[in-house]
Order: sequence, then structure tokens, then C-alpha cells
Amino acid sequence: MVQIPNTPRSVPTSADVARLAGVSRATVSYVLNNTSAVRISEPTRRRVHQAAKELGYVPHAAARSLRAGHSRMVLMPAPAVPVGPLYSQFISDLQSALGRLDYTVVQYGSVGLHGDEAARAWAELRPVAVLVPGSGLGPQGVTVLKRSGARAVVTVGPECVEGAHAVQMDHSAVGFSAARHLYERGRRRIGVVVPAEGGLEVFSGPRLDGVRRALAGTDATVTELPLAYEEEAAARLAARWRERGLDAVFAYNDEYAMLLMRALQDEGLDVPADTAVIGADDLMLGRLLRPRLSTVHIELPSGRDLAELVDRAVRDPAAVPTTHKVLGASVVHRDSS
Amino acid sequence: MVQIPNTPRSVPTSADVARLAGVSRATVSYVLNNTSAVRISEPTRRRVHQAAKELGYVPHAAARSLRAGHSRMVLMPAPAVPVGPLYSQFISDLQSALGRLDYTVVQYGSVGLHGDEAARAWAELRPVAVLVPGSGLGPQGVTVLKRSGARAVVTVGPECVEGAHAVQMDHSAVGFSAARHLYERGRRRIGVVVPAEGGLEVFSGPRLDGVRRALAGTDATVTELPLAYEEEAAARLAARWRERGLDAVFAYNDEYAMLLMRALQDEGLDVPADTAVIGADDLMLGRLLRPRLSTVHIELPSGRDLAELVDRAVRDPAAVPTTHKVLGASVVHRDSS
Repeated sequence: MVQIPNTPRSVPTSADVARLAGVSRATVSYVLNNTSAVRISEPTRRRVHQAAKELGYVPHAAARSLRAGHSRMVLMPAPAVPVGPLYSQFISDLQSALGRLDYTVVQYGSVGLHGDEAARAWAELRPVAVLVPGSGLGPQGVTVLKRSGARAVVTVGPECVEGAHAVQMDHSAVGFSAARHLYERGRRRIGVVVPAEGGLEVFSGPRLDGVRRALAGTDATVTELPLAYEEEAAARLAARWRERGLDAVFAYNDEYAMLLMRALQDEGLDVPADTAVIGADDLMLGRLLRPRLSTVHIELPSGRDLAELVDRAVRDPAAVPTTHKVLGASVVHRDSS
Repeated sequence: MVQIPNTPRSVPTSADVARLAGVSRATVSYVLNNTSAVRISEPTRRRVHQAAKELGYVPHAAARSLRAGHSRMVLMPAPAVPVGPLYSQFISDLQSALGRLDYTVVQYGSVGLHGDEAARAWAELRPVAVLVPGSGLGPQGVTVLKRSGARAVVTVGPECVEGAHAVQMDHSAVGFSAARHLYERGRRRIGVVVPAEGGLEVFSGPRLDGVRRALAGTDATVTELPLAYEEEAAARLAARWRERGLDAVFAYNDEYAMLLMRALQDEGLDVPADTAVIGADDLMLGRLLRPRLSTVHIELPSGRDLAELVDRAVRDPAAVPTTHKVLGASVVHRDSS
């Protein structure tokens, strides 16, 4: 049961805790912030914790970060587009790993903010590190963040930004692997799905480039296929499939592949005899389709590796920004290609 | 180009801005915080903004919230389990709506923290409101949050917690609708998938209760079917299907329905002739399956309605906590049932 202090609705302060425990405010601060520089006896420590508990006192992170000059907060802008299961698992692992290193991950809703304007909003929270997935942050934004006290700015995505550490995910490797696979299976007229949904260009662009790179100098052709994630759009694309004469498609990912494969089958086309289909992400749903969907398995960096990179960057804020190329891509060949 | 102040790596303060603009610190504060109570000429306003820009100054949210006593931060613990597309769209809409009401949504990684311990961690950030999805917060946690200055605590989920406003999502309605549909289609031996994955009990429990409620007093039987989201587990369940004599299954949601339907078909069972299958969530993938998957469409509250509820609660912190029952459930009948 929480004991009500003298003024019922007031917020208890460290002074209240000090009074109840019969110690100084400095002692309260030492104990509750776990300062190792000052020796405090176990009974005193217990008395302070007991008093804080009775009063329902919680330290003020803002006040503490003002005193310390920075927080243990790692700020991550929340992605503006709904994310898939692969990425959502990655974020969850990363949060756990940073938590074990005693950081607090705060995801900041950046909807409606863009580029350096967003960076200014993030800077207001005075995070010790900023981990930016996707793209949009410019060198100016990095400067704003560092000037506000962020010790590390780390981008995770296809691009590098001046002044920030980069965990560079080269999505062209995904397209490259898919195209090589289709070519080796004898396919020559290869379509590439480009999602019409906004926000996915940072992934779809490099994937298409990877396909072009894999097929450059061969006798294969590459056809861009814009596609919205809707049944009607897929049906329209499938209706014109035969006249285009395509014999294979890299469908961006497994979800678009499922959508398009259904439309092609409904149109009477045989997968893979008439058209080979390959997705990406290696989701469970691809194994449940008939024919079983071939896919590109994407190896993201482990949450632990990334957390350790952030921690090293925080400990050495003067270090020259580094670029770490991550993301493995390997084809999982099933029945659709 | 950002101009470097005298001490290159120091963080610029509002005093620096005041000096450069030739105004008082109070004026800087009025201008940058958009205080309407004080009239400041347009040229002065411009000079302050210009100086802040040149110096790369950003206000310190923590300092501002210390002065104001609270922030405009709405804290939302990040869900501990990876969330589906339906929920992820809902969160994204909610963030936009709160943004338009001038709140900042901060998602706090609560991995590894439980119940009232988590509430204490959230309280340290001194949010003006806390919006808790799912379950786990107790009345003690609500007290801690309010004592730390949160003006509103709102839970969104199946449960109500003393002291907090509740947006109550009654998931039993989902199971109820599914079971009524199967019963009306002539099915009597009804299985209910209960995901083995942790964290989903708050949804699967009420859904199962809803099925039982719908079939109470009828000649139908209800069989609980624990199922992990893995092909092998689904195959094992399907292998024993005939001996159990089930003629219908409510498969928890569309993703589990896809998994189980594939396993039943691989086992040679005809859907729906031998066994009717119905999912929930009304995802695109259900329309792409053959037979097309019947499902329960779930109507979540709009992000805007929920944002306005939070705003009203913040404006009137002394109000008696209210309970809003939301979540509509309606069957979408396709070919699998």
C-alpha cells in the first residue's frame, strides 16, 4: 500500500525521501542513482530505498539527464510505414540487447516530420545516441543531433550520411541473388515488381539495381512492374502477362509474390512452367503456398551486434564514423522457380 | 551552413541565442516556445529564429518540462510481442492523430520489465499521459504514474484497471461471432485454436470464452487446440484430426488459419466439406487462399477517436475514470466455411 504524504496530490520529491529516511538529499541521490564513487552503508541504503517505496517516489529522468548532461536514452524514430514481421522481430531483439547494456530505447513517432526538422525534434529529448532506420536524415540533421549532445548517431539502411556511423544494408544484393537464380534456371525475360506504396523506394530501388547488375551483358531483359498491394492491381497486371512474354518475376518480397502468384494462377498461367516466381524475406507464408515459394533469405545483423556497435560509438564519440556493410542474401530454392 | 560558436564542441544554449539576437533570454524563451501571452514584434521574432538557426540551437525538452511541470509527451510502452499488420496500422494512425493535437508519442521499449516495475520506469520520463496497450499494469502502477505527474493513464485492451481510463476491447465478441457462424452453418464439433506463443493469452483467452458463450446450451462441443505457429505443429494436429471428429475450427486469426488449412489439405481433408475453417482479422492473405478464407472482421477504434479521448483525459485529470467499450466484430463469409 502506498502511503499518502502530507499534501495528497503533490508529487513526492527527493527531499521528502531524505526527510523520511533521516538522511541528506545528496545521500538519497547517491543511493538511488547507484553512484559507486561514494561509500554508503547497507542499512542507510535500505532506509533510503524503503522511504522511496513508501512515498511512491520515482527519480525524474529529465532532471537526472540535465545534471549528467546526457541520458541513457537511445532514440529510434519509429518507422513511418507499417513494418513487416522480419523487421519487427529485429527491432524487438535490438531493444532487448540495448536493455541488457543498460540503455533505454525510446521510439519516437516521427509521422509528419521530415529530414532535418525531425532531427531537431529528436534532439529536444537529448538522447545519448540516435539510431535512424531507413533514410531521410541529412548531414545537417547529424550536426544538430551532435550539437545537442548526442554522442553517437548511427544510421541503419541503404544509405550513408556524413558524420554518422553507418550500418549499411545493401539491398541490391537481394535483387542480385534473385536475378542470378532466375537466369541460371534458364529464364531470360525477367519482370521485377516495384511496390507502388510510398516509403518502400529505399528498398525497391536498390533491389531493382541489383537485378540489372546481375543481368548486365547477358541476353536477358529486365521489365519494371509497378504494383499496388491490391487484388485488382495484381489481376490487371496478370491479364497482360502473356502479351508481355515474361517468363520469370522477382516479386519484391514474399507478400507481393503471394499476391501476384495468385493472380497469375487465376489467369490460367502455370507457376513455374509458364512463369517462375521468387520472393524475398523467407516468411512462413511462402512455405504454405502451392507451389512452395522460392525466396531470398535475408540475414539482418543481430540485435546484439548492433547494440554493441552503438555502445562502442557512445563510449568514443570522437571516433571517425565507420561503415559496416551487413545483410547477407541467399536464395532458398523451392517449387515456384 | 551551421556557424561554429566560440567553443567549438559545446552545446549552444538559449543565452547564446539571446546574445546573438541582441534580446533577453526571456524573449528567446517566449519566441521559441510560441507563448501567446506575450506580444513580440515580428522583426524580433525573426531575429531570434535566425539566431537559433545559425547557432544550431534546439530547446531542451527536459528543461522545458521541468519548468512546465509536465511535457506534451504521450508515452506508449512498445508491445513485447511482434504485432500484426492490423495493430501496426492502428498505432501509426494513432500517432498521427496525437501529433495533430500537438502531442509527441514516445514508444518505450518495455522488454524485460513487468507490471509495476515497468510503470516506475515510464514515470521517470514524466509523460503527461500514458497509453498502455495489452495488459500487465496494475492499480499500484497507475498510482505511481499519477503520483509522478501523469495527468491521464489510459489502458487499451481486454482488461480494466482501477484508476485508469479504459478503452476496453472485448475480444470475446470475436470468438462469439465465429462460433455463431459455424453453428448456423450446421457444424457441431468445433475446435478452437489457442496459440502456444507467449503474450497472446490476453486475446486468445477471451476469444475462447466467446466461443463457449455462443455455444452454451446447444448440442455443439468445443475442443481447445493448442498450436504453435510452425509447420510441424500444424501437421501433427492435422494428423489426428479425423480421430477427433471435428467438423469446424475457429483458428484464432487468419495467419493461424492459413497454417492449419494448409496442413488439413495436405492431410487430404476437404475444406469446407470435411472441416469448415474461419480466421479473424480480415487480412489480404485470406482472400488469396483457395478456398477463400472466411474471417471475422475486427473494427478497432479510430486513431482520431482515441487521440481525442487522451486529450480530454489530460485536460480533466480529476475526472472519474471511464470505460469505453470498443471493437466491433462481424463475420465475412467466404468459401472456407
